[in-house]
Amino acid sequence: MLYPIIMAGGSGTRFWPLSRKSRPKQFLSLTGEGPLLSLTAQRVGSLAPLSRTYVVCGKAHAAMARKLLKGMPAKNVLVEPIARNTAPAVGLAAAVVARKDPAGIVMVLPSDQHVRDTAGFRRALQAAAKAAQAGALVTIGIKPGHPETGFGYVQQGKVVMKGALPVHAVRRFVEKPDLKTAKKYLASGDYLWNAGIFVFRADRILEELARHMPETTAPLAAIGKAAGTAAFSKVLAEQFPLMPSISIDYGVMEKASGIAVVPADFGWNDVGSFPALPSVRRLDAHGNVAEGETVLVDVADSVVLGSGKRPLAVIGVSGMVVVDAGDAILVCPKERAQEVRKVVEELGKRGLGEVL
Amino acid sequence: MLYPIIMAGGSGTRFWPLSRKSRPKQFLSLTGEGPLLSLTAQRVGSLAPLSRTYVVCGKAHAAMARKLLKGMPAKNVLVEPIARNTAPAVGLAAAVVARKDPAGIVMVLPSDQHVRDTAGFRRALQAAAKAAQAGALVTIGIKPGHPETGFGYVQQGKVVMKGALPVHAVRRFVEKPDLKTAKKYLASGDYLWNAGIFVFRADRILEELARHMPETTAPLAAIGKAAGTAAFSKVLAEQFPLMPSISIDYGVMEKASGIAVVPADFGWNDVGSFPALPSVRRLDAHGNVAEGETVLVDVADSVVLGSGKRPLAVIGVSGMVVVDAGDAILVCPKERAQEVRKVVEELGKRGLGEVL
Repeated sequence: MLYPIIMAGGSGTRFWPLSRKSRPKQFLSLTGEGPLLSLTAQRVGSLAPLSRTYVVCGKAHAAMARKLLKGMPAKNVLVEPIARNTAPAVGLAAAVVARKDPAGIVMVLPSDQHVRDTAGFRRALQAAAKAAQAGALVTIGIKPGHPETGFGYVQQGKVVMKGALPVHAVRRFVEKPDLKTAKKYLASGDYLWNAGIFVFRADRILEELARHMPETTAPLAAIGKAAGTAAFSKVLAEQFPLMPSISIDYGVMEKASGIAVVPADFGWNDVGSFPALPSVRRLDAHGNVAEGETVLVDVADSVVLGSGKRPLAVIGVSGMVVVDAGDAILVCPKERAQEVRKVVEELGKRGLGEVL
Repeated sequence: MLYPIIMAGGSGTRFWPLSRKSRPKQFLSLTGEGPLLSLTAQRVGSLAPLSRTYVVCGKAHAAMARKLLKGMPAKNVLVEPIARNTAPAVGLAAAVVARKDPAGIVMVLPSDQHVRDTAGFRRALQAAAKAAQAGALVTIGIKPGHPETGFGYVQQGKVVMKGALPVHAVRRFVEKPDLKTAKKYLASGDYLWNAGIFVFRADRILEELARHMPETTAPLAAIGKAAGTAAFSKVLAEQFPLMPSISIDYGVMEKASGIAVVPADFGWNDVGSFPALPSVRRLDAHGNVAEGETVLVDVADSVVLGSGKRPLAVIGVSGMVVVDAGDAILVCPKERAQEVRKVVEELGKRGLGEVL
C-alpha cells in the first residue's frame, strides 16, 4: 500500500515578506492556485486516501496544516518536537507506517513544489513504487530543461527495471554545480535534477537508516513502538531530539547502494524564491507576474505582488521583484532575491520580529 | 511696505503617492523640516508681519493653509474660485494690496522651494524691493550651479542699481533649454535660473497687467474695489474666472520693458519631484535619502521613503525612487520619475480617485 508523506517542515526566509516564521511558503498560494501544501496533497489524492497520507511539520504549523487538510485524520500530522532536517522526519514517518504495515511504500514528497502534469507525476510515482516494492530505494529524477545551478543532480546508470517509465540505477548524487558543470550535465543527457522525492518500503528505509545513521535506530524503534498509543507524543518528544540533524539525501541516499531513479518530465518546478514564480504563474505580455492592484508602466520580466489593499505602481524597470505583504515591503532585482535573508537578519536585530 | 504673497495654488502630481489632490506638495514636509508652505512663510517672517503676508490658493486647500499659518488673519488666505495660473493670482493679490496701499511692494513667492541661506534670501529680496520701490518689475535670478535643463533662464544685462547686491536690467527670459544650450548659458556667466520670485509695487504690476493682459483690467478693478467689504467673495467668484489662464512670466514679465533682476546665490532649490530631494535633504553614506523603517542593502543614490508604519526593504539598486505613502506605493528609477503622471492617469481611469 502507498503512504504519501508530505514534508512540510520548512521555514525558509526566501519568500519574505510574504512568508513568515508563522506562515512558511508551503502555506502560501505562491502559484495562485491555493496553498502549496494543499496542492501537494491533492496531487497524490488518487494514489492513496487521506487516511494513509501523512504530513510532517513543526509545532508552530501543525494547527495550520490540520486546518488546510480537512479530510486527513489529525493524528496523521506528525509533529516534529524540534527541527532536525529530513532524515529524522523521514524516519519518523517510516516508523509510524511500519508499525502497521512494514512493507508499506512510503513516498516522500516536498510540500513546496509545482507540478504541471499531474498525471505524469503519478505515473512516475507508480513506476517508483513498483521498484520500491522489490526493495529498491528510489528517487524521481527530473529531466533538466536548462543548466540550473540551484539544484543537486542525480546521475543515472543502466536500466534496472523496464517499463513505460524505465527505472535506472543511480551512479551518484552530486551537489549543486557551477554553471560550466551544469552545462556539461545537461549535454551529457544522463544527469537529472534531484527533486527530493523519494519512494521506498518503510522497512527498507528503516534498515538503511540503521546502517548509515545508527544513532537513529533506538529512537526510531521507540517511536515506532509507541505509534498509535497514548504515549506517542511523550515518546516522540523524548526520542526525536536524540537523532542527528541530517538530510535524508546526505544521511542515506548518497551512501546506500542499490539506489534507483525514475527519470521523468512532468513540468516540475521548485518554487524556491520569487524569481521562480514566472515559471509557475501566468505572465502578462511583458513577462511579468502581476497580482493585486498593480499599475505597471514599461515594466518587464518582473514579479510585482500587491497586497490587494492599495495600489502598487512600478515604472520603467526590468527583472525586479516588488512585493507588498501589507505589513512589509520588498524591492530588489531578481538576481539578488536570495539576499532577502540579510533583510530578515537586520529586522531581527531591530526587534521587529512581528514581521519575520 | 512689504507684502509677501505666497503662491500656493499648485496641484501637481509629481510627488504622488505622497502628494494628493487634497494635499499638494506645498503642504508636505518634503525637506523633512515641516510643510513647504510653513517654511516659506517663516522665511519671510522678518521682512513683514503675518498680517501683511498673503497666501493665494485653491478652494480645496484654503482650510489647510489657514490651519498651518495660525498667526495669519484668515482673510489673508486669498482663495481662487478656479485655477487660473499665476497671472490672475498675482493680479488678485496686487489688487487687494493696492486697495489699501497702492505703492505697497508685493513679493511673489512660490510655496514649494527650498532655501539654504535664509539671510541671503532676505538680502536679495530687500535689494529687489529697493529697485521695485523705484518702479521696476524685479525678479530674483539664481546663479546656476550646473547646466540645468529643467528651469527657465533670465539673461542679465547692465547694472541699473549699484549696491551690495547690484540690480541688473533683464535682457530676456528664455524657456527651458536643451543640455547644449544650458551648458552655453552656464559658461556665459550672464544667465540665471528663473526662480519664479517677483517683486514689484502693487500699482506697477496692475499697470503692466492692464497693458499686456487687458482682459484682466475690469475684473481686477472690481476685485480691488470689493476688497475688505462683505461683497468680496461674491465679486471674486464672478470676476476671477473672467481672466485668462496665463502665467505671470508669460503674460507680463517676458513682455514688459524695464524688467530688472537681482542675481543671487542663497542655496536655492526647486523641490520639483522626487529626484530633487537629495539636494535638500540629509543623505546617508551612500547618497540615499532614507526615511521611515527602511532596510537598505547595497542601495545607492536612491530616494527611499517609508510610511513609518511598516518596514520597507530595498536590496541592490541604485538611482531608484521607492515611496510607501501608506495607501499607495511607487517604485521607479529617478530618471523616469516624471512618468508618475501616467500612473495617476491610470488610477483615475480605474476609479481609484481616493488615492489621487
